[in-house]
Amino acid sequence: MTLLGGVEAGGTKFVCAVGRGPDDVRAEARFATTTPAETLARVVAFFREHAPLAALGVASFGPVDLHPRSPAFGSITTTPKPGWQHVDLVGPLRRALGVPVRVDTDVSAAALAEHRWGAARDVTTLVYVTIGTGIGGGILVNGRPVHGLLHPELGHVRVPHDRAADPFPGACPHHGDCWEGLASGPALAVRWRQTPERLPDTHPAWELEARYLALGLVNVLLTVSPERIVLGGGVMTRTQLFPLIRAEIVRLLGGYLQSPALKEGIDDYLVPPALGDRAGVLGALALADGA
Amino acid sequence: MTLLGGVEAGGTKFVCAVGRGPDDVRAEARFATTTPAETLARVVAFFREHAPLAALGVASFGPVDLHPRSPAFGSITTTPKPGWQHVDLVGPLRRALGVPVRVDTDVSAAALAEHRWGAARDVTTLVYVTIGTGIGGGILVNGRPVHGLLHPELGHVRVPHDRAADPFPGACPHHGDCWEGLASGPALAVRWRQTPERLPDTHPAWELEARYLALGLVNVLLTVSPERIVLGGGVMTRTQLFPLIRAEIVRLLGGYLQSPALKEGIDDYLVPPALGDRAGVLGALALADGA
Repeated sequence: MTLLGGVEAGGTKFVCAVGRGPDDVRAEARFATTTPAETLARVVAFFREHAPLAALGVASFGPVDLHPRSPAFGSITTTPKPGWQHVDLVGPLRRALGVPVRVDTDVSAAALAEHRWGAARDVTTLVYVTIGTGIGGGILVNGRPVHGLLHPELGHVRVPHDRAADPFPGACPHHGDCWEGLASGPALAVRWRQTPERLPDTHPAWELEARYLALGLVNVLLTVSPERIVLGGGVMTRTQLFPLIRAEIVRLLGGYLQSPALKEGIDDYLVPPALGDRAGVLGALALADGA
Repeated sequence: MTLLGGVEAGGTKFVCAVGRGPDDVRAEARFATTTPAETLARVVAFFREHAPLAALGVASFGPVDLHPRSPAFGSITTTPKPGWQHVDLVGPLRRALGVPVRVDTDVSAAALAEHRWGAARDVTTLVYVTIGTGIGGGILVNGRPVHGLLHPELGHVRVPHDRAADPFPGACPHHGDCWEGLASGPALAVRWRQTPERLPDTHPAWELEARYLALGLVNVLLTVSPERIVLGGGVMTRTQLFPLIRAEIVRLLGGYLQSPALKEGIDDYLVPPALGDRAGVLGALALADGA
């Protein structure tokens, strides 16, 4: 059986894997994201070692152009990352490796991986949200990623911000106090003037963080009506957040939505990723497989 | 060619139609929503006059149970409307008329109608939002309504509310100052102590209204990434709101999303319904046709 290749193209590192799924990874490599030319050359060299591949999946940081008819299809568009604006990921890899290349956002890929092998196998409409250096989300409806005009940009939704209780103006360079501006890892670091890893579990930062995360998640929930929310990323390794967020979601909904999943079943509704930080590269394998 | 039946089941009136689309409506009836038994009897009597039908579509006010495997499939669930809680719409109509009955929310049906015959024919991922006695939304992804756990309940998302600038506490009995609580027709009436129809075009109510509507729409836009937003309902008959909302959406996005549709193309991105207040009953015909 021919193998598949998957690349998680991140802003700080690239992860490459050859295999067919979480229990069948034949080779893996990770390296820092440097210039596009150097980084893509490393990707090509890794996969050439493991040829032939049936297809390659690319799970990319964004924004990325996913419109099949766009001249910039498969390119990163307006990232703040120096040197990576308007970089074509798909074309060079397809030409160098001679295989079909399928691309989506890193978060859509993670959603696909969790749906196929992880915490959302039994549902078809789901949201994967990552809370880390930014906030991002991938949405599957009937098992397929939602793209639309561009692709979801969950991090930049606006949520209520009580400036009397929390005078922090927000850390988003585009929008100030959008969701990401209030609740990403860097927002925590700037608001509390220390790295989030060093904030003790008892610090009031976490209650406030849970409140903002719940506000954004309730909005996603009322919009897409997912059957499950998978919540990952560096900030969520602070697992004490899960019960705080769940309780706040139930409180914010105020009993309006009639579903056991949003009451006694909330522990199974809002869950951590089963694949941890491997969801991205495994999602790239799922993309390669035509998921 | 056998005809289709469509019912728009609203909280204040029911509209029934027989035909195949906007240019082919053979008969139509509308009557006040009274008790479930009396109202459904009128629906049955109307469609019996026009038998045989190939199928019936029901576009219902909500919340409505749309889970095919649920014992309450096709029932209205927790409406505040007296007498209508847990009323089965689908079963009685199917038994009385002996035809397949297909059901969705009124707003999903309106989205289907606008997609098939109206303002969103050239796209497949779109949102229909109505601003009236409440705020509701239907979402199509790849041309199909999104359901998920329940169905979208857009009206109850939380948006920023600056209580210094707008001390109105909100009119939603469940959530106070959720989107609907701040920006529905009744919210306008309570905040300004007069019926919205009587507020002059120059009243500051409309600038504030446009700001709240833009805040909610930007969140939908960043979540679902629709290719078009169709914005209808009683409040939106005040057409001066459209340019105000469009300008505020562009401002709130802050240039973050790179698409002509969200800049110079915004007039064609956020549009009124082409089918006006007939979108619901026409959407019911589209449902009957298996849309």
